[in-house]
Amino acid sequence: MRATVIHGPRDIRLEQVPDPSIRRPTDAIVRVVASCVCGSDLWPYRGIQQVRQPHPMGHEFVGIVEQTGPDVTTLTAGDFVITPWAISDNTCVNCRNGIQTSCLHGDAYGYPDSDGVIVDGGQSEYVRVPLADGTLVATAEQPDEQLIPHLLALSDVMATGHHAAVSARVRAGSTVVVVGDGAVGLSAVLAAKRLGGERIVAMSRHADRQQLAREFGATDIVAERGEEGIAKVRELFDGIGADCVLEAVGTKQSMEQALATARPGGFVGYVGVPSGGPELPIGPMYSNNINVAGGAAPVRAYLPELLVDVLDGTIEPGRVFDRELPLERVAEAYAGMDERRSIKTLLRP
Amino acid sequence: MRATVIHGPRDIRLEQVPDPSIRRPTDAIVRVVASCVCGSDLWPYRGIQQVRQPHPMGHEFVGIVEQTGPDVTTLTAGDFVITPWAISDNTCVNCRNGIQTSCLHGDAYGYPDSDGVIVDGGQSEYVRVPLADGTLVATAEQPDEQLIPHLLALSDVMATGHHAAVSARVRAGSTVVVVGDGAVGLSAVLAAKRLGGERIVAMSRHADRQQLAREFGATDIVAERGEEGIAKVRELFDGIGADCVLEAVGTKQSMEQALATARPGGFVGYVGVPSGGPELPIGPMYSNNINVAGGAAPVRAYLPELLVDVLDGTIEPGRVFDRELPLERVAEAYAGMDERRSIKTLLRP
Repeated sequence: MRATVIHGPRDIRLEQVPDPSIRRPTDAIVRVVASCVCGSDLWPYRGIQQVRQPHPMGHEFVGIVEQTGPDVTTLTAGDFVITPWAISDNTCVNCRNGIQTSCLHGDAYGYPDSDGVIVDGGQSEYVRVPLADGTLVATAEQPDEQLIPHLLALSDVMATGHHAAVSARVRAGSTVVVVGDGAVGLSAVLAAKRLGGERIVAMSRHADRQQLAREFGATDIVAERGEEGIAKVRELFDGIGADCVLEAVGTKQSMEQALATARPGGFVGYVGVPSGGPELPIGPMYSNNINVAGGAAPVRAYLPELLVDVLDGTIEPGRVFDRELPLERVAEAYAGMDERRSIKTLLRP
Repeated sequence: MRATVIHGPRDIRLEQVPDPSIRRPTDAIVRVVASCVCGSDLWPYRGIQQVRQPHPMGHEFVGIVEQTGPDVTTLTAGDFVITPWAISDNTCVNCRNGIQTSCLHGDAYGYPDSDGVIVDGGQSEYVRVPLADGTLVATAEQPDEQLIPHLLALSDVMATGHHAAVSARVRAGSTVVVVGDGAVGLSAVLAAKRLGGERIVAMSRHADRQQLAREFGATDIVAERGEEGIAKVRELFDGIGADCVLEAVGTKQSMEQALATARPGGFVGYVGVPSGGPELPIGPMYSNNINVAGGAAPVRAYLPELLVDVLDGTIEPGRVFDRELPLERVAEAYAGMDERRSIKTLLRP
């Protein structure tokens, strides 16, 4: 089959690799219907995260179950499935606590499993999915073609935006700021709106992203950044900041901005993958009771609830995909996202 | 009157100073019935926090209203009152949000008010209390003498321990770890028990404190610290840690211990005054969804609720006072707490 492999900074290749096969009785083989590039895939692409050895890429995909191992009980060949970006058994204590990203037996797409065998990445034609019963969520019926992008978005970005909103305690009437206008930030706007956020400020400098943010529920746009952006946001909220700040970037600046725009007693819900820090400044957090919650989004915990809203058309999170390419042009998909020409690019094998 | 003034590290003096008088129409003059030394008073005492100029000490006291300014409407001379450690108007937006410690018009005992006039400290005979309506909480009747220590504890330690427990989301059935066996840590044990904590681990190496922790509701004691302490605690909770960790110290080590003993998805509720850091390591927090909430305890928000439980005898938070001294021996009170010969010392003017 063909699979995307990263060899180093800006070196993305679609390669011929052996077709996957069932290795463990809990595995399933999934034929990929659609996958995509994640903002976090850009960290190794940009060389910010080191690539120690070439490895498959992609942890967001939807597809059709082709084959199941003998211990798989909840899935059968032909099922349409969505995968969370993290592989989990969904039965261990951490999974039961709703933190499937900390599964005691979890694996990761694109990296070696506990036997040292690489798990396929999603930017490919087929994927061996370990712990298939725990990981995959099947739809009752084959979804309409037009639902594919929205279902794919549940694999990561929408559920990650939702995790930011839940972690920041967005509820009916909350005032909200979203830091970051990437696909996760935009999804966070949608998630905040869905949870009842009343006033939602999207911080964005790009006209197309501002537009989508508004359509997703943003009531205000702040284009300024840094000190100026902070002042502008605080001004919108009694001069003190918002109840909930959703951080969807992961840099030192974005976290500083998030902490500075939360009101005393407010929550920063963060999901941006921390990129070389930042460490959180406890002094100002302490003085103003600024709380910090979130982390790697346990997508599996949220998938069933969000799936209902996608299937009945309540939310259309797949609108973050503004470009679609065939898998053979995967390198172009990375370049387009890197250069911010695309918010998020969908790939079809 | 006599008032406690700090001049520098280990230099605590009881001095003769002018009696306070009403300066603003919202002031009240309170005759102190009992006050005490706070763990945070030991930071300047130990020289960890710089004393730029001599200033009055003490932010925890109970007393009798002697006189009120013309704008004070909820208090009258003769009322028995408890003060939160922070002065607040209880009407601004931050106060309405329950974060009276961030009051937009707040002052602090022992420091200059917005007119540059020093506010008295509580370790004295009388105190001019600014924003008296917002700050002070009066009891309906004169309390029995034996209730004094318990009421005094509401001024800071008990409400601060409660803030740690609330911030860490302790609820019925929670598993809890308390880091720190000072008066706040012990109060946090009591608060966790009160909120329904099922299994409560107190980390303590001192027999007398272990004993009080057990009486306050601790089900387990872990005497080990550092890596050994972390391993011991994790072992008690599925090998993964507790739902809620209450941090009541404020050092780098104590926070590291707290972060390492919370389970994935768990909350660290911290109230230890951060002493020169520590910055929070976002990497491990992100990976395991370890959340951090808390800060300077908004005692005023919790006082009415906790007062009910003290008045009806449900909780006896004043048991943290294991020593009582007359005000003239205030220097000895500091020394005893500094040398850990006393958990907390009550002072009578």
